[in-house]
Amino acid sequence: MAVYTDVSDEDLHQFLAAYDIGTLLAYKGIAEGVENSNFLLHTTAGFFILTLYEKRVAAEDLPFFLNLIEHLAARGLTCPQPVRSRVGEALGQLVSRPAAIFTFLDGMWIRRPNVAHCGAVGDALAKLHLAGADFGMRRRNRLSVAGWRSLFDTAGGRADTVYKGLGQTISCELSLLEHEWPRDLPQGVIHADLFPDNVFFLGERVSGLIDFYFACTDALAYDVAICLNAWCFEPDHSYNITKGRALLRSYMRTRKLTPHEIAVMPTLCRGAALRFLLTRLVDWLEVPPGALVKPKDPLEYYRKLRFHQANMSARDYGID
Amino acid sequence: MAVYTDVSDEDLHQFLAAYDIGTLLAYKGIAEGVENSNFLLHTTAGFFILTLYEKRVAAEDLPFFLNLIEHLAARGLTCPQPVRSRVGEALGQLVSRPAAIFTFLDGMWIRRPNVAHCGAVGDALAKLHLAGADFGMRRRNRLSVAGWRSLFDTAGGRADTVYKGLGQTISCELSLLEHEWPRDLPQGVIHADLFPDNVFFLGERVSGLIDFYFACTDALAYDVAICLNAWCFEPDHSYNITKGRALLRSYMRTRKLTPHEIAVMPTLCRGAALRFLLTRLVDWLEVPPGALVKPKDPLEYYRKLRFHQANMSARDYGID
Repeated sequence: MAVYTDVSDEDLHQFLAAYDIGTLLAYKGIAEGVENSNFLLHTTAGFFILTLYEKRVAAEDLPFFLNLIEHLAARGLTCPQPVRSRVGEALGQLVSRPAAIFTFLDGMWIRRPNVAHCGAVGDALAKLHLAGADFGMRRRNRLSVAGWRSLFDTAGGRADTVYKGLGQTISCELSLLEHEWPRDLPQGVIHADLFPDNVFFLGERVSGLIDFYFACTDALAYDVAICLNAWCFEPDHSYNITKGRALLRSYMRTRKLTPHEIAVMPTLCRGAALRFLLTRLVDWLEVPPGALVKPKDPLEYYRKLRFHQANMSARDYGID
Repeated sequence: MAVYTDVSDEDLHQFLAAYDIGTLLAYKGIAEGVENSNFLLHTTAGFFILTLYEKRVAAEDLPFFLNLIEHLAARGLTCPQPVRSRVGEALGQLVSRPAAIFTFLDGMWIRRPNVAHCGAVGDALAKLHLAGADFGMRRRNRLSVAGWRSLFDTAGGRADTVYKGLGQTISCELSLLEHEWPRDLPQGVIHADLFPDNVFFLGERVSGLIDFYFACTDALAYDVAICLNAWCFEPDHSYNITKGRALLRSYMRTRKLTPHEIAVMPTLCRGAALRFLLTRLVDWLEVPPGALVKPKDPLEYYRKLRFHQANMSARDYGID
């Protein structure tokens, strides 16, 4: 849940004067998103989402994100769209922060995804990869293999306070992945954070994708590996191969994986697990003891990593 | 900000089946309210607020609150109305908690109220008191003078860790108020928590009142004293008599204060300040050090109490 910055009615009225979206009738802070402050706006023109970008999102990256979602929408993908101001700007300034208004997207994220949901997200991910193919901007993935060692330097020394032996496990895995990471895979725009809370459904149909603030240019198959980690494990941390098969088959119906992408899937899955293990570990160690807001459990990804380490081929994920 | 309980899409669908408000299209946790979990619902019938009552609200009090807001609305006051289920129930059960759906109320709360806003709230408060006059249910005010000593017993011993001498100040004030508290004032339904975040405005017009979860049967003039504390001080803790005069005059145009109510206004204001000083002190001392959610500053009400202690008559508040 997140509202880091309160916005006064006066500041908001002044901000909205630059937009052609009617008169403000109500606004409420929304308990969603961990990187930004979000508000629901009701105006005489309808409902909108106002986002204030807090310091975890780099201001220089915002044009990439905003142009990307407009590009994707123009190619038929559904995602919240920035509302441009009277002078055509997608990005404004509110309470000394970059701020943007978005269209309101219906749909709900699924707390307990079933096989059909996993299939639907595989299809949506492949469509995202195809729609992004001709996007003109690039953004480096700071959270891919080249970025992991600095995260480990930050948190590795204290890893064993979370779980005995965790530091050593991460250290070995990191050295191995730095050596074996595949570097010649098909590249393009990836979402890089397509967890269940970023995919909206109406029934079993995907109604849209949200939260592109980790999107970047990287190996498309790495995005698939992130989704396998995020969607296809059960609450007891066991891998559900039926869900994995559904996700992969749906993906491949829209975009075929190359033999090389398939061959390196276990490595990509290990990397994806390590990436979330590391960032969660940093967040976990940064939060003061006794805080009311609990960060996400890093050990969930330790257990997923252990599963991937035992896998030999893409068959273990459900690719026939 | 508050979402204490997450609600799954499956649980919510099942809950909504008992209501005639169309198909669910979206729901989002709202960062408002400190006692309950609140969600915005979008259905094919429009926008609604879903409230889950957490343990700070006593389940046996809910019929009082829900019947009261229906009673007030029937007499022309605007406040969010409970949506009754197909079988006529205002109260349901969701994630093992009492839960209710309310109509969506437009308007915004004012972060920096001006004189006109203070006048408008005085008028709204008087209308609330008149509309509540024939309400048939009663609820004791657990946070009036009879309830303060037990709060002091909880927190008084640690008061000086917040501010040196605070324990002694509260102890003397409490003894004095227990002795001098006026007990023969006109009684009725009071809101008891009509702070700026519970009054919605569209422009300088009140669009509605919210959050009746402290409402009870008590002295009407005590509600006026709570509002003087909540609306008529500046950020530097000085009393703004122009705002006080505007609030009191507007109130008295709709409901005349009796000479006795006017005479005891300084005592009522001291009591109101002590009540919020005590509850904030308890909350302050209960929060673990380093927590991300900061409770409200109890010393704001210590300073207001100091102001009231120096006052001799209602003239000091702006009553001519």
